[in-house]
Amino acid sequence: MKKFVNDPQQFVPEMLKGIALANPDTLRYVPEYNLIHRADAPRDDKVTIIQGSGSGHEPAHVMVVGRGMLDAACPGDVFAAPPTDYVYETTKLLASPKGVLLLVNNYTGDRMAFEMAQEMSEADGVNVRTLFIDDDVAVKDSTWTVGRRGVAGNFFVMKAVGAAAESGADLDELVRIGEKVNSVTRTLGIALTACTPPAKGSPLFELADDEIEIGVGIHGEPGRRRAKWMPANEIVDEFLGAVVPDLPFERGEHVALMINGLGGTPISELYLLYGIAHEKLAAQGISVSRSYVGEYCTSLDMAGASLTLVKLDAEIEELLDAPAEVAVRVF
Amino acid sequence: MKKFVNDPQQFVPEMLKGIALANPDTLRYVPEYNLIHRADAPRDDKVTIIQGSGSGHEPAHVMVVGRGMLDAACPGDVFAAPPTDYVYETTKLLASPKGVLLLVNNYTGDRMAFEMAQEMSEADGVNVRTLFIDDDVAVKDSTWTVGRRGVAGNFFVMKAVGAAAESGADLDELVRIGEKVNSVTRTLGIALTACTPPAKGSPLFELADDEIEIGVGIHGEPGRRRAKWMPANEIVDEFLGAVVPDLPFERGEHVALMINGLGGTPISELYLLYGIAHEKLAAQGISVSRSYVGEYCTSLDMAGASLTLVKLDAEIEELLDAPAEVAVRVF
Repeated sequence: MKKFVNDPQQFVPEMLKGIALANPDTLRYVPEYNLIHRADAPRDDKVTIIQGSGSGHEPAHVMVVGRGMLDAACPGDVFAAPPTDYVYETTKLLASPKGVLLLVNNYTGDRMAFEMAQEMSEADGVNVRTLFIDDDVAVKDSTWTVGRRGVAGNFFVMKAVGAAAESGADLDELVRIGEKVNSVTRTLGIALTACTPPAKGSPLFELADDEIEIGVGIHGEPGRRRAKWMPANEIVDEFLGAVVPDLPFERGEHVALMINGLGGTPISELYLLYGIAHEKLAAQGISVSRSYVGEYCTSLDMAGASLTLVKLDAEIEELLDAPAEVAVRVF
Repeated sequence: MKKFVNDPQQFVPEMLKGIALANPDTLRYVPEYNLIHRADAPRDDKVTIIQGSGSGHEPAHVMVVGRGMLDAACPGDVFAAPPTDYVYETTKLLASPKGVLLLVNNYTGDRMAFEMAQEMSEADGVNVRTLFIDDDVAVKDSTWTVGRRGVAGNFFVMKAVGAAAESGADLDELVRIGEKVNSVTRTLGIALTACTPPAKGSPLFELADDEIEIGVGIHGEPGRRRAKWMPANEIVDEFLGAVVPDLPFERGEHVALMINGLGGTPISELYLLYGIAHEKLAAQGISVSRSYVGEYCTSLDMAGASLTLVKLDAEIEELLDAPAEVAVRVF
């Protein structure tokens, strides 16, 4: 294993410290609970939005804490749900009189931790709701889930509820918006290589030099099938062939198109995929009116990408347009 | 080779088409010259800023065209300087009465193409200046350069002259600012793996499973030495041991610290490096007051990172603070 790491057990805390040191004005780091939160949270006039999940998916979620996005993220170790008490302590520390919304990608371990933390917080008198995200069309149930998995499409749910919360929406309204965005969001991932968790030190699974995994999960879980490597045009056919009919996305509709890198794929290849997908959608009469190309939800150093479509309407577009400020920036 | 690619010869044009399709309101693509330019360029009231270089370093430079940054980028093929006539035609097409500034990372091939294009444009009556960037401390001369190489530190030159041009600075003033920023910027790169150009289909060089290359160039050129893999703390000592004494950066100074990913390294590892470097600099009395963590200038899918320091003063900070809009965005 060749990574930039010291003791693999300290990988997550050392990363979190780096995030905090790079954003001293806007973020706070509470090492006891792997907690990154906005310096100005909680606020009395705003529902607090918290997302957990395992680490290894950065920038999700610790690097998208900021104005118009999350108030806090409390990650677990790499690919491990956060402990219940981390979520509970985070919820308590950041509780607002307007309530707390917990965003959870649908994995069994995360569901358990967040549902238990919700019960404990409610017993303390905090008004808490939980929203599960399950945008991955690849498999119905999987290694780590009952039902569909939550993957890169979680970005759109976060962005929409983050914008609405910033403008004062109440907890019920945020749940309505989050469920709505989740219901029109669909994703498929394809891996070119496996990923290597720092503590394991070797790839999580094996893919031959000429093989790809179609429908891969963001923890390297198996997808729909293994296939021989194919050119980018055919890869995009695989993406769209799975995603478009699932909702379905239909002729005449406007969509947001995200090409998300899984961690080890250069952005040049992501834009190449984007261009092909944009044109193939146009040929089907589906108009891409918002583009998202880059890394949003990764799987450590996995080479690969996912494609997400979101069916747009005026309300969703306005929420996606709203300003946001997060740790990750280019300039 | 497992990449998202169709015909490797079409890798660059297909990527450029993707960039253009993702940014229909702000960018224009001219396929004849690999040219990406701002939709509103050239402007009579603003010096035009153009950067070339080979492809394979994205987001540099085709994805950082936009307000407050570049007016245009005309890349060559992967790791190849743009042809002289691409640079010449780009310069002619985007010439402003206030002049044109060509930014060039210091490589022999790029220098030749840009210097010749400058002469040809001047013969046409265009007012052109060229600015060479050479921030890499690793080697004095290299495979492809006389003198030092230009690497990720070129971002700071671009950002500073981009901001100044936006506020109306003339060509002489831009050259002064660019030379000043270049003169206080220093970078070193370290590779964990080689990179694989699409047209070659195999790694450019070999690194054993326990080896790293210290001082690597962004085309996989050799650096100072090969070493055994070492923990992140020691990697940061290698970075700072080369970069800090070079200017030198001294106790009491304020710096910008960039940890730039080389294409295949997840952002979690970059923040881990950032945190360590920030604290080690503080221990030397050097205060990091601006942070840049992510991918700025890559080497295709190479796993690795570079560390850049910029000595700050009020003028440079103001230019780095100015607003900018580029293709690459997170939200």
